[in-house]
Amino acid sequence: MKYFIKEEQIRFRHTDFAGIVFYPRFLEMLNDLVEDWFDEALDRPFSKIHETNGIPTVDLKVQFKNAARIGEVLTKKLWVKELKNSSVVCGFTFSNQDDKTVLEGEVTLVNVAITEDRKSITSKAFNEEIVQKITNYKL
Amino acid sequence: MKYFIKEEQIRFRHTDFAGIVFYPRFLEMLNDLVEDWFDEALDRPFSKIHETNGIPTVDLKVQFKNAARIGEVLTKKLWVKELKNSSVVCGFTFSNQDDKTVLEGEVTLVNVAITEDRKSITSKAFNEEIVQKITNYKL
Amino acid sequence: MKYFIKEEQIRFRHTDFAGIVFYPRFLEMLNDLVEDWFDEALDRPFSKIHETNGIPTVDLKVQFKNAARIGEVLTKKLWVKELKNSSVVCGFTFSNQDDKTVLEGEVTLVNVAITEDRKSITSKAFNEEIVQKITNYKL
Amino acid sequence: MKYFIKEEQIRFRHTDFAGIVFYPRFLEMLNDLVEDWFDEALDRPFSKIHETNGIPTVDLKVQFKNAARIGEVLTKKLWVKELKNSSVVCGFTFSNQDDKTVLEGEVTLVNVAITEDRKSITSKAFNEEIVQKITNYKL
Repeated sequence: MKYFIKEEQIRFRHTDFAGIVFYPRFLEMLNDLVEDWFDEALDRPFSKIHETNGIPTVDLKVQFKNAARIGEVLTKKLWVKELKNSSVVCGFTFSNQDDKTVLEGEVTLVNVAITEDRKSITSKAFNEEIVQKITNYKL
Repeated sequence: MKYFIKEEQIRFRHTDFAGIVFYPRFLEMLNDLVEDWFDEALDRPFSKIHETNGIPTVDLKVQFKNAARIGEVLTKKLWVKELKNSSVVCGFTFSNQDDKTVLEGEVTLVNVAITEDRKSITSKAFNEEIVQKITNYKL
Repeated sequence: MKYFIKEEQIRFRHTDFAGIVFYPRFLEMLNDLVEDWFDEALDRPFSKIHETNGIPTVDLKVQFKNAARIGEVLTKKLWVKELKNSSVVCGFTFSNQDDKTVLEGEVTLVNVAITEDRKSITSKAFNEEIVQKITNYKL
Repeated sequence: MKYFIKEEQIRFRHTDFAGIVFYPRFLEMLNDLVEDWFDEALDRPFSKIHETNGIPTVDLKVQFKNAARIGEVLTKKLWVKELKNSSVVCGFTFSNQDDKTVLEGEVTLVNVAITEDRKSITSKAFNEEIVQKITNYKL
């Protein structure tokens, strides 16, 4: 029943010739948000899970509403829309300091196991412990 | 009535710890595809249009179907789903050498004018010449 | 007579197939460090200077000493080795939580003016105010 | 006794607010050049070597001489300055279509073995076959 919230400042490396954020950089910021959520809220830091597991993104929908410029600080918000057996659909918004929505969308993440030779990837049910933690962010 | 098609090889810089393409890199590849389409098919190279105009992405939907690994060569396909006054909705697929779909989706691009001080961005109707060229890729 | 110091956490997006930071990402981190130095210590935020000025990198030397892995927090240090009329040579080190040097090097930045049409870039002497602030970081 | 040569076009994703290539992107282009050299000239594609081996960069020196802008095609040249037991020092230059040097420098690559758990990285002598191939590019 709560949002996971982080702030991120727009850096020179994010912006393009038009002086605004190049949109693939927004998705790096989204990946950071998911990474922070797993680390800080779900107790599954990427530094641990990527030895034998992963959380690949399988579906992404984004609407870019307003440009963001260097120096601005964005508020990134994430919540759970739907939790399935081995996947979770999260909603997200990034807004600026004038409280305007910069972008909004939804992303579907799948819990997977990776074989030791990293050749095979298969989906795997979330365990009970993480299900409970994820549920805290269900709106 | 045709696809715009380019190939791109997966490079070391595209891949992540799991040995597969990090998904924001796919969107850089998509941006390259749009850039090539404007340059080679629509006669509007980004090197020209970005002085006074731009083609920002306002909506993006992607489904990631299969992983892509270093050394693979992807075939990137783009076509027009809908052409409006100042925007165009394009479909796209990336497939691998086994003809498996790596990803598919749709992206909406808006034609904009940028003021000389680059502070203001406003949408602007496509001119007739480019409308005709875009229409060639309508499926 | 002091260092400019910032911390940065290694993220998933920084790492490559070998599970360590892909070295061009270290240079994005270096650029962030320079950006923070201009913003926080020299009172010249990039959001302001890039309208008419810039600080391009003209020379870079880096020795990569130890790998950095996801989850690690690096301490990034910067100081001034030499201040010239329109350029500054900075030393830098990144070290990890075990106080091991991850990388060290030096970077030369040039103060430039950019014409309004962004076609011409020429070097320009630093003004007295910034010279004084830069000098604080001279070792 | 020869150069390894590739061309690369400057893309929108390479450029920054100043309309020129953001320098960490040049190092991604350099990494692509090394990757192509190993794949096409040394018969050691990164897709193979990164299962058990790697070629990390341990030393880098670059001088950025001229800006590069979107649409330009750069000629990237690489050669061998010194071949040691387990490392190789390569020279490189990127030049533009007016034959102006955009950047030049040298990079030191080390041949390493990676343990299966990817926790340990140790340098390893180049084998005779690759030594012979590398020597072809010694100037």
